[in-house]
Amino acid sequence: MPKVSNKGMQMPESPIRKLVPYSEIAKKKGHKVYHLNIGQPDIKTPEVAMNSIKNLDIKVLEYSHSAGFESYRTKLSQYYKNHGLPIDVADIIITTGGSEALLFAMGSTMDQGDEIIIPEPFYANYNGFSTASGVNVVPVISSIDTGFALPPISEFEKLITPKTKAILICNPGNPTGYLYSKEEILQLADIVKKHDLFLIADEVYREFTYDGDVHFSVMNVPGLEEHAIMIDSVSKRYSMCGARIGCIVSKNKALMAAAMKFAQARLSPPTFAQIASEAALDTPQSYFDEVITEYRERRDILVSELNKIEGVKVAKPKGAFYCIAQLPIDNADDFAQWLLESYDLNGETVMVAPAAGFYSTPGVGLNEVRIAYVLKKEDLIRSVEILKEAIKAYNSK
Amino acid sequence: MPKVSNKGMQMPESPIRKLVPYSEIAKKKGHKVYHLNIGQPDIKTPEVAMNSIKNLDIKVLEYSHSAGFESYRTKLSQYYKNHGLPIDVADIIITTGGSEALLFAMGSTMDQGDEIIIPEPFYANYNGFSTASGVNVVPVISSIDTGFALPPISEFEKLITPKTKAILICNPGNPTGYLYSKEEILQLADIVKKHDLFLIADEVYREFTYDGDVHFSVMNVPGLEEHAIMIDSVSKRYSMCGARIGCIVSKNKALMAAAMKFAQARLSPPTFAQIASEAALDTPQSYFDEVITEYRERRDILVSELNKIEGVKVAKPKGAFYCIAQLPIDNADDFAQWLLESYDLNGETVMVAPAAGFYSTPGVGLNEVRIAYVLKKEDLIRSVEILKEAIKAYNSK
Ligand SMILES: Cc1ncc(COP(=O)(O)O)c(C=O)c1O
Ligand SMILES: Cc1ncc(COP(=O)(O)O)c(C=O)c1O
Repeated sequence: MPKVSNKGMQMPESPIRKLVPYSEIAKKKGHKVYHLNIGQPDIKTPEVAMNSIKNLDIKVLEYSHSAGFESYRTKLSQYYKNHGLPIDVADIIITTGGSEALLFAMGSTMDQGDEIIIPEPFYANYNGFSTASGVNVVPVISSIDTGFALPPISEFEKLITPKTKAILICNPGNPTGYLYSKEEILQLADIVKKHDLFLIADEVYREFTYDGDVHFSVMNVPGLEEHAIMIDSVSKRYSMCGARIGCIVSKNKALMAAAMKFAQARLSPPTFAQIASEAALDTPQSYFDEVITEYRERRDILVSELNKIEGVKVAKPKGAFYCIAQLPIDNADDFAQWLLESYDLNGETVMVAPAAGFYSTPGVGLNEVRIAYVLKKEDLIRSVEILKEAIKAYNSK
Repeated sequence: MPKVSNKGMQMPESPIRKLVPYSEIAKKKGHKVYHLNIGQPDIKTPEVAMNSIKNLDIKVLEYSHSAGFESYRTKLSQYYKNHGLPIDVADIIITTGGSEALLFAMGSTMDQGDEIIIPEPFYANYNGFSTASGVNVVPVISSIDTGFALPPISEFEKLITPKTKAILICNPGNPTGYLYSKEEILQLADIVKKHDLFLIADEVYREFTYDGDVHFSVMNVPGLEEHAIMIDSVSKRYSMCGARIGCIVSKNKALMAAAMKFAQARLSPPTFAQIASEAALDTPQSYFDEVITEYRERRDILVSELNKIEGVKVAKPKGAFYCIAQLPIDNADDFAQWLLESYDLNGETVMVAPAAGFYSTPGVGLNEVRIAYVLKKEDLIRSVEILKEAIKAYNSK
């Protein structure tokens, strides 16, 4: 019998998927499960986007250009410019989700055995893309005690080797909700320039910032043009996760030429979804205002409710729609499984993502979970209530 | 300035893209260009597929399951069974085009430096996927003189090393149009079993066979279950290239578990396009009958017209919609460029794909071009007329 590749065996399982069989158990018992574990918003997709597809009149569903439709790239460049990002059409390649943009970025900057430094906890699929690209993740720990701020630059310096090719950040962060300050981005800019590295910034949650904090993009740093690679996506911005449209953005011509060859090999990003994404650019500002208000209110409720539970520590998120909560338990993996398998409060329970899966260093974050505030407020309140009772029950087992 | 990866530099440029600047020149001159170079059919997408999207009533465009919608996989499994292929729902992972299925297949079967044997000429993007996967292509030459039949199995035997992990075939072939016989597939089955290799069969043109020849799938070989991986796509079957929906199919559980981890990392295949692809399964047989008749007539006209040109040799395709033609010229690369840059017959010219880009062995196929019969008959006749006059003019330069 032929054997699967080592790479195939080493590809990580998503930290959430492991819980799926247990959520099936909860469902079989007839328990209602509040899903605090997912990144799929419940927010409505803008009507302009959905209507563009309903009103479509094409006879042959053709491939688009490998870099995406010219019309879409042109409008997208304008969108960025309107938001203060100096991004030209030539700086953009449309991809199949931010996911593919991350793959292209890794493939274009790194070879087998090269290293990428990533502040942890980080988006778990960075592990998968790294394994698929034959690249080693070198984590640098950020801590709940500083709200997951950028670790001291000296910590990065210590980790840089001749194999280091890039630093990858997520801003605002999934799973931390942390928004890097302009100063932090400038510190990163200095170090990547000093060591001739790429700075890959996953900015798919760019629009989701609260409390008047302004997102500062790597595309806004003068002199960083040859180093900066931005990853973007329509998934969260327009609640269009199923579109599978994102982009890789850079002013480094050699990098974009390499990324373009990856893009050509897979022919083109999805046509329907590009049409919808182009139309989505006409979404009125009022849509975003409402969405941001909704998320901010959810965040505030979630954080204040969590803070009422004894022994719980939360890093108040400044952006995105996740937070990391430290719980008064030893093993969040076991707790999350138990919640589904063995617990209910009047027939209801919650599903959370154990945070260990977001750390690359073994043994870190064992008592932390990631909570996504993608549910409506009443449900969030009820979820935290269940969590509170569950912690008590779990600890007195 | 940070440097692009070696991989990024080694990623091959598509053999057709190189001609694009020259086709721009032809266009600027106001010349009409007949595109014999592309794999984008002019056939209408089935109405059931397009209507499914127009009538869509969803509020949130969500991610699907990473393996694709259960409903789609269920119907697709039934489609295969109706076509004599014993494929269960669990044997299918829906991918973003056949392209992504090829990437998953390579990633799940091979590590950096491993080898994959492919009969050449082959679909040029196999080179790109191999480079992206860190894998080496080992070509085995098939010849126009045998109509691109399977090379003798002894030729494969000679090339197998401890690093060989898979044999990849395209059936029916792009760019050859060759349809492997049942006997040939059984020979391949024997050798992969003997050497414990995977047999990856790219069957995206499965439905396009002419002259009553029946396609024989690797999924139909008893005892090959652990070795066979089938690649499929809706791109050509329903003229839905822009959908970006395909699948990887195998009964090897370990292989599918590995592929599933690649699938999870990128979250899901496109939602709109999956809905359209599921609906496309209801396309009436009459649609295919018409399409096949149309392609057969085009093929017959193309081949008989080409055969009228002195010095031209064509391998009559048995399937797909491409053929390789050997021309009485020395360098098809130069000729293809010249056709666009310097030639016209009453303001018209043709664009062909130089076949060298479909060979991995340097210096082979230099006097061959690939012609796609994706144009209507009158245009094909006119294209060959232009080609005929062009060859004369080129050779008397
Ligand atoms: C931080 C981050 N980056 C990238 C992605 C990938 O998203 P997509 O491929 O849907 O654009 C996600 C999705 O959850 C994410 O959270
Ligand atoms: C032989 C072959 N395999 C795979 C593909 C990939 O097609 P897609 O990704 O559109 O399914 C093509 C497209 O032309 C092809 O010709």
